[in-house]
Amino acid sequence: MREIAILGIGQTQVSENWNQSIREIAGEAVLAALADANLTTVDGLYVGNMLSGLLGRQESLGALIADWVGLHDKEAMKVEAACGSGAAALRMAIMAVSSGELECAIAVGVEKMTEMKGSETTAALATAADADYEVIHGLSFVGINALVMQRYMYEYGWKHTHFAPFSINAHANGVHNPYARLHEVISEKDYQRARMISDPINLLDASPIGDGAAAVVVVPAESVKTRFSHTTLNHRHIITIVGSAAATDTIAVHSRSDPLWLAAAEKSARQAYLQAGIGPKDIDFFELHDAFSIMSALSLEACGFAERGQGPRLGLDEKITPSGEIPIATMGGLKARGHPVGATGIYQIVEVAQQLRGEAGRTQVDGARIGMAQNIGGSGATIVTHILKASRN
Amino acid sequence: MREIAILGIGQTQVSENWNQSIREIAGEAVLAALADANLTTVDGLYVGNMLSGLLGRQESLGALIADWVGLHDKEAMKVEAACGSGAAALRMAIMAVSSGELECAIAVGVEKMTEMKGSETTAALATAADADYEVIHGLSFVGINALVMQRYMYEYGWKHTHFAPFSINAHANGVHNPYARLHEVISEKDYQRARMISDPINLLDASPIGDGAAAVVVVPAESVKTRFSHTTLNHRHIITIVGSAAATDTIAVHSRSDPLWLAAAEKSARQAYLQAGIGPKDIDFFELHDAFSIMSALSLEACGFAERGQGPRLGLDEKITPSGEIPIATMGGLKARGHPVGATGIYQIVEVAQQLRGEAGRTQVDGARIGMAQNIGGSGATIVTHILKASRN
Repeated sequence: MREIAILGIGQTQVSENWNQSIREIAGEAVLAALADANLTTVDGLYVGNMLSGLLGRQESLGALIADWVGLHDKEAMKVEAACGSGAAALRMAIMAVSSGELECAIAVGVEKMTEMKGSETTAALATAADADYEVIHGLSFVGINALVMQRYMYEYGWKHTHFAPFSINAHANGVHNPYARLHEVISEKDYQRARMISDPINLLDASPIGDGAAAVVVVPAESVKTRFSHTTLNHRHIITIVGSAAATDTIAVHSRSDPLWLAAAEKSARQAYLQAGIGPKDIDFFELHDAFSIMSALSLEACGFAERGQGPRLGLDEKITPSGEIPIATMGGLKARGHPVGATGIYQIVEVAQQLRGEAGRTQVDGARIGMAQNIGGSGATIVTHILKASRN
Repeated sequence: MREIAILGIGQTQVSENWNQSIREIAGEAVLAALADANLTTVDGLYVGNMLSGLLGRQESLGALIADWVGLHDKEAMKVEAACGSGAAALRMAIMAVSSGELECAIAVGVEKMTEMKGSETTAALATAADADYEVIHGLSFVGINALVMQRYMYEYGWKHTHFAPFSINAHANGVHNPYARLHEVISEKDYQRARMISDPINLLDASPIGDGAAAVVVVPAESVKTRFSHTTLNHRHIITIVGSAAATDTIAVHSRSDPLWLAAAEKSARQAYLQAGIGPKDIDFFELHDAFSIMSALSLEACGFAERGQGPRLGLDEKITPSGEIPIATMGGLKARGHPVGATGIYQIVEVAQQLRGEAGRTQVDGARIGMAQNIGGSGATIVTHILKASRN
């Protein structure tokens, strides 16, 4: 793939935000990313969003947000891949500049989820699953993940408490991220005693929904020193995307030959490794899609960081903390930063960029040079993996 | 832009189709396009769709359809730009192969709209407009277009009956298209007497909704003679995309300095002309977005085929028929073929390809070599223009 540079990043705090409309939330992140990039405009805007139609009665988010932020007349559209919408929109921005169609594009992920009743939000989230073969039987989205976790514990002999480190690490890191939704350290006892949601998934296995937006500005890497040379003045490092790949799996979990294996995570990660010319050992930290703690285990396995069925071992051996072998959820992950679904994939990219710039604060991964982000739509149906790299400016 | 070839096209009849689910409808078009291209697989699938979340409680259409048609593990996602979603998905497929990220991609537009009550469909279609500043006042989507038409008639002195040729031509052409929803010749008297919907838009000014899907397979043009040389055996002509551009305008019509001018149509058409190295005079026929007859007039003006305010003149002078100077809606247009919103943009491309291959039947435009398609999301908020060209195989 053609190498792509990230010139600017922006994000809003994930929160329960009843004071701003979806265009205002998205606009805040877009304008922050443009300011960070020393730019006032771009050639195109790609919006990652899943639920604005269902929860906000508003489609056409591309034109809506472009209009609001002053990107008058620019190309703009929305990309949807359930909870993987954010990284899918980034894929589109990458392809737009990589093809030469545009010189400079912005990808913004945005979601506004907290104004509706919980039952309506739960029903809306279930549109990520197969309406005709899963949801029709009364399965909610957390219910599907609970079945997967139940089976995983049965097959590999893990107890619920063995998943505690995923949640504890995410919360410990999120405390230091001003953009995170939750700022609360939790203990193993808290984890064990949390309210049950869908057995075995309890409240501390599940990421909270939220309102928020994150944005990144991308250009072809070779134009950074020419047309866009003014954009990197503020930064010691230039961040480039050296791997970008998307893959799919069956939408219904029951259709998979192995429901405990994220085939699309494996495929997209392999392809991204190949593009970057590296392997899992070269990844300094991994912003994975910990929507539920079981997904952390499955992602670590599919991407080559743990043997099959051994994901929880990495947590128990303290390898996932910021000073561990493969730090994950370094800014809080979905679990503590929060999971405004269509925005999450871009939050992950922003956080990887913060780490690679050395601007991650108290949870900075020492010497971080190569980071990976993986965004999952549905229960593994669409998975998008990106590998980012820092170079001295 | 890099030149792109269309290897295969497929479509289903636009109809009230209660017997097939959305994945089955989309699958039929995808498999038809693959068969037409002599291919069994592609590297990626981009879905144009607006309303599957609201009307079918199903998001994640990319993975859903890829899974259904046997594109196991391929990249897949949905693209949304209201009624412009189809051409927006094609933009993404073009950028995917143009960037070299994929060698071969399919864009499929699909919509399933007829199972809901009319009031629910009307409410869902209104999500194309500005929820906070237009819809909140009770405006429906047809209501917005009626205000524009009213103003246009007032400003330029046209009577309602002067718009009749747009509808009469579309219906006359649609009769011969087996994939069209309506097969019914109409007279000027029928047009004048049709039931009023939202003054001055009557039933014969408005396109019917419908269920349907259309698909196209695209590759970089230079790979047609090499890797994909087997795909064109059945065809006398190779169809290439020589212009592709998207632009936006304010989402709310009242925010525009001139609500009677489609600025995004003008911008995207100009850009497509520039890419193709041609002007309006070189266009042999124009598949425009006649969701309402007023939109035909505005599109013809913005794209350089008529003076400002003079769009209806082309109809009255019989220039828009298949044997006229600038044939439009040659296969029935949105008016008679039907308007399954997220699919329409791909139907237009399929129809242009049929004309350029000389396979348009009774409404074949003699000697058609260059055709243009223009797909509009919202009341002109997102507009995508493509120019296609035929070359001897």
